[in-house]
Amino acid sequence: MDKAEDPLAQLENYDGELPIIATNRSQWFGGNAIDHGRLDRLMEAARSESVEMVDIELETARGKEWVLEEFRETDIELIISFHEFEETPDQTTLDAIIEECAQYGDIAKVATFANDRTDTLRMLRAINSATEDGIQIAGISMGEIGSHVRVLGPLYGSKLGYAPLETDTSEYAPGQISLQRVRSLIDAIEQGEAATQIIDGVEERAPASHGYSQTD
Amino acid sequence: MDKAEDPLAQLENYDGELPIIATNRSQWFGGNAIDHGRLDRLMEAARSESVEMVDIELETARGKEWVLEEFRETDIELIISFHEFEETPDQTTLDAIIEECAQYGDIAKVATFANDRTDTLRMLRAINSATEDGIQIAGISMGEIGSHVRVLGPLYGSKLGYAPLETDTSEYAPGQISLQRVRSLIDAIEQGEAATQIIDGVEERAPASHGYSQTD
Repeated sequence: MDKAEDPLAQLENYDGELPIIATNRSQWFGGNAIDHGRLDRLMEAARSESVEMVDIELETARGKEWVLEEFRETDIELIISFHEFEETPDQTTLDAIIEECAQYGDIAKVATFANDRTDTLRMLRAINSATEDGIQIAGISMGEIGSHVRVLGPLYGSKLGYAPLETDTSEYAPGQISLQRVRSLIDAIEQGEAATQIIDGVEERAPASHGYSQTD
Repeated sequence: MDKAEDPLAQLENYDGELPIIATNRSQWFGGNAIDHGRLDRLMEAARSESVEMVDIELETARGKEWVLEEFRETDIELIISFHEFEETPDQTTLDAIIEECAQYGDIAKVATFANDRTDTLRMLRAINSATEDGIQIAGISMGEIGSHVRVLGPLYGSKLGYAPLETDTSEYAPGQISLQRVRSLIDAIEQGEAATQIIDGVEERAPASHGYSQTD
């Protein structure tokens, strides 16, 4: 909302089929919203019929549980999000952040910047173990190196992805892949998973348990 | 060699352009070769001009360093391989196995069966940390769940992949993806990595450091 022109009017006029995630970031979190009235406007959006999820920053959620209660009454699902634009925290911290997000909301969203492959591995591990713990997690490794996590994340349990339309040239996050491409890559990887049954349309003869050392 | 008909004659007549990895697995390692003369025949193959790498099992390499020396004199690169068809060892064991393979040969190859995502993550971590340690590693998660590691492995440093031709319907390992498909997926994922510069041919405007919380 902080980057849209008159977002509440836009929501009112919205007649698209896709449900909307509303967020209203203050400058503290990379947005444009001034603090005064920020959550009130977000609450108004939450009452809109097309808005099915609201994204609130973990830092905002802390110590404002009464606000979260109010949001819940509007019948939305609550995403509690954590962003770190410079690095990816160590595993223990990352897991703890996710757990805290999950305590405040329905979906824990963490987006942290990946400087190297160790960072992307930590994110995949965090997604995997949160999923094993029954947490609805959305995990993103920001930046170029983290790009493949946008494709692999869902495989490890990530529940939300963020992808621009190909036609939307206005603003991408580094490492973001267009919706069309990320969708086709996820499909292809998942089809790869089904390769034991069918490989490229050719039915596979299941090898005997010791029969496949030849090919691997 | 243990599954080919008269492999030494085939090697002699080979006039293809692609270099060959030779291996001769005994029944202990999922192959058909009888122990007697197995390494002698493999050595003969190693002397063939088209053979550039020889794959010897870690278990064979242990305690037979004089054999490895002889192989090295034939001017091939030595892959020392470890297979585990039922599970993926814990992280410490896996890393230790890779290190041991690397001590005996030029390339450490580990192929272990993945029962869940934790197993594939351990393999990716092992590939990543071996690469950071300067080890030439080839890591494979066998089985359907491990399929995506065949695409992701190279990104984390894996140096060799194993993929059947689409036309080769005779024997696949579970989770193997055809050469054509694995190649195109690796390309696509790597192109995703370059998405900061170009997204689907549309030049991206680099956002300010705090500008991208809107889209992620």
